[in-house]
Amino acid sequence: MDVHELIQNLYQKNDSKIVMLVADGVGGLPMAPGGKTELETAATPNLDALAKQGILGQSIPIKPGITPGSGPGHLGLFGYDPLKFQIGRGALEAAGIGFQIQQGDVCIRCNFCTIDDGGLITDRRAGRIPTEESAPLTVKLREVKIPGIEIFVEPVKEHRFVVVFRGEGLEGNVLDTDPQKTGVAPLDPVAIDPGSEKTVEVAKEFLRQAKVILADEPKANFHTMRGFASKPALPSYEELYGLKAAAIAVYPMYKGLAGLVGMDVIPDLITLKDQTDALKRLWDDYDFFFFHFKYTDSTGEDGNFEAKVKRTEEFDTCIPDVMALDPTVVVVTGDHSTPAKLSGHSWHSVPTMLISDVCRSDACESFSETESIRGGLGQFEAQYIMALAMANADRLGKYGA
Amino acid sequence: MDVHELIQNLYQKNDSKIVMLVADGVGGLPMAPGGKTELETAATPNLDALAKQGILGQSIPIKPGITPGSGPGHLGLFGYDPLKFQIGRGALEAAGIGFQIQQGDVCIRCNFCTIDDGGLITDRRAGRIPTEESAPLTVKLREVKIPGIEIFVEPVKEHRFVVVFRGEGLEGNVLDTDPQKTGVAPLDPVAIDPGSEKTVEVAKEFLRQAKVILADEPKANFHTMRGFASKPALPSYEELYGLKAAAIAVYPMYKGLAGLVGMDVIPDLITLKDQTDALKRLWDDYDFFFFHFKYTDSTGEDGNFEAKVKRTEEFDTCIPDVMALDPTVVVVTGDHSTPAKLSGHSWHSVPTMLISDVCRSDACESFSETESIRGGLGQFEAQYIMALAMANADRLGKYGA
Repeated sequence: MDVHELIQNLYQKNDSKIVMLVADGVGGLPMAPGGKTELETAATPNLDALAKQGILGQSIPIKPGITPGSGPGHLGLFGYDPLKFQIGRGALEAAGIGFQIQQGDVCIRCNFCTIDDGGLITDRRAGRIPTEESAPLTVKLREVKIPGIEIFVEPVKEHRFVVVFRGEGLEGNVLDTDPQKTGVAPLDPVAIDPGSEKTVEVAKEFLRQAKVILADEPKANFHTMRGFASKPALPSYEELYGLKAAAIAVYPMYKGLAGLVGMDVIPDLITLKDQTDALKRLWDDYDFFFFHFKYTDSTGEDGNFEAKVKRTEEFDTCIPDVMALDPTVVVVTGDHSTPAKLSGHSWHSVPTMLISDVCRSDACESFSETESIRGGLGQFEAQYIMALAMANADRLGKYGA
Repeated sequence: MDVHELIQNLYQKNDSKIVMLVADGVGGLPMAPGGKTELETAATPNLDALAKQGILGQSIPIKPGITPGSGPGHLGLFGYDPLKFQIGRGALEAAGIGFQIQQGDVCIRCNFCTIDDGGLITDRRAGRIPTEESAPLTVKLREVKIPGIEIFVEPVKEHRFVVVFRGEGLEGNVLDTDPQKTGVAPLDPVAIDPGSEKTVEVAKEFLRQAKVILADEPKANFHTMRGFASKPALPSYEELYGLKAAAIAVYPMYKGLAGLVGMDVIPDLITLKDQTDALKRLWDDYDFFFFHFKYTDSTGEDGNFEAKVKRTEEFDTCIPDVMALDPTVVVVTGDHSTPAKLSGHSWHSVPTMLISDVCRSDACESFSETESIRGGLGQFEAQYIMALAMANADRLGKYGA
């Protein structure tokens, strides 16, 4: 019996409310030995007050030493073993723009590119063509027709768009056509397994027609295809936990991830205030709220320590609005660490805390990397956060007599 | 290779003695934020002295967030993966009264009940009929005869008794007949799989004859059947660890659990003094002693914080008698937490300590939830306690060259 099966057998429903606050990439590093991390530098009085009430620990996103992307990082937070369940990048991108992926669809991330007369790539991103110019080209690509295949072409942003093939016998195990360098021709799509050969034929035909349609464009006169992916087979939050869940996120990728596990994705949120307003407005309609704050990650990715400190302080300001709703269980965590020092995601464990009336509080005095080391949750894999949250909300029955 | 296979290949025998002291449900919660747990409130000078000598940690009974029943909780303590090995309730109940279950038996928990002239249940427990009245009725039910089936009918306590069917082709996947409410008739037994259909026929015939035998009883004029279960396939302590093991427990369930893993169940123990006397008497005859103290759990289940504190202090008094025997390894733990605040088992990790000459002691000063957070064993799944105990007793050889 695995943990999912266990939880599906044990969950019970009640009126409790669970809020999972995800400060993306919240964990960090000091810029110099002996210094403080971004989170330790930031003034976070509200998070620190919660730390006194709650139980802390460090969550390991995947396994020790493994740095996750946003997909596996969030699957772990949502309680799905990120080594067992995998989301292809194309499926993630499609879900992220609100596209409703169906079983059997193959989703592909595409980049407009510039090729010369000899067919060699001169710019892999078509000069980062602005969205106002690229979106109409994306719509133009809807002229591509392939018998027996329904085709969706959806703009994303700048040079990026998504193609989805819908039809019988399509699988997503196909290699990228982006050669990752200029001065060479785009690669042909290649199937990794026999089940994906039909997809390759469809992709080749799409590329052939697209080349004709785009031929006269000055910058975006062709495109590459990457991250071919079928819809992942993920049990939904409702099936797994018996939870009606809402995703309160700003960025498409996190909306997409939440949509793939069956959360209702709340539209049109831009600011942190939009998010807390939505939380308040939807409070009675849902059991579980995934609340995602992006900027602790993006500033870390930029390598901007000071900006990450400021964004961490901004995140701290939403806590009183959340706590005013009197949630049964609050979890504060991140999907991974993004130390400004590394300008990217990292493997470091993530300071995590859980607040409830029955959490068995520890001696931790603040929310930080250093303090969470001595927390009562110890170090644990992120995939168990949901089980802990469910238990604290009295939503899990006893296993065995 | 799983851990059982590993241990079976590595174990070696010597003259060491291992004592596992289980204070059932020992972990707790403060009644109000900032307060102390039951264990932290109790005066436990002997346990605290051991904490200074030993190494502490927090054991996770199953997985983070999962609350175990006594069955899976003890399987974990005994070193059996509680998600892999499962014991049906009927098998547990039968083992708990000392019944020697054989492979192929089907064990059933039965409750005497009262039905009216229309066959509807008016009392699901026959007025909690006292054991003096129910036991003779149980014996009377031995008159039931079914060709080809050997039948055992054994009293338990009050309205409860056990029926075991022994014969060819019996499996235990059968639904309960107890409808869980009054005013309705008992349900017919129903097979969940084809292999259990013969069991259903036997159970129906048993119920038919029992109704006739009990017809004139004023209270216990019928019975229900629950928890149908075959004998679980558990390797024995001797096979797994090469240990001759004795169970020094008072309550039937824990005797039953110990019997299922092949421990010798020591009979006729009632008081804690009986238990320490038995430990002393049997010291030379066994390698491993499972010593079970029930009342830290039962007071927690009652929601009685003060009583749990007192029972914890009582448990503490047995330590000098145990240590006087100079055991090689002592483990003190619980099968789960039972906070009085929750009046039931919980998912919280369990303060655990191990004392031996080679345990690598940590800085912990007392045996408690808070102190064990900073223990040298960290947080770990209970199923590894036995491997740690074996290692500390020099009973596990090296893995690989």
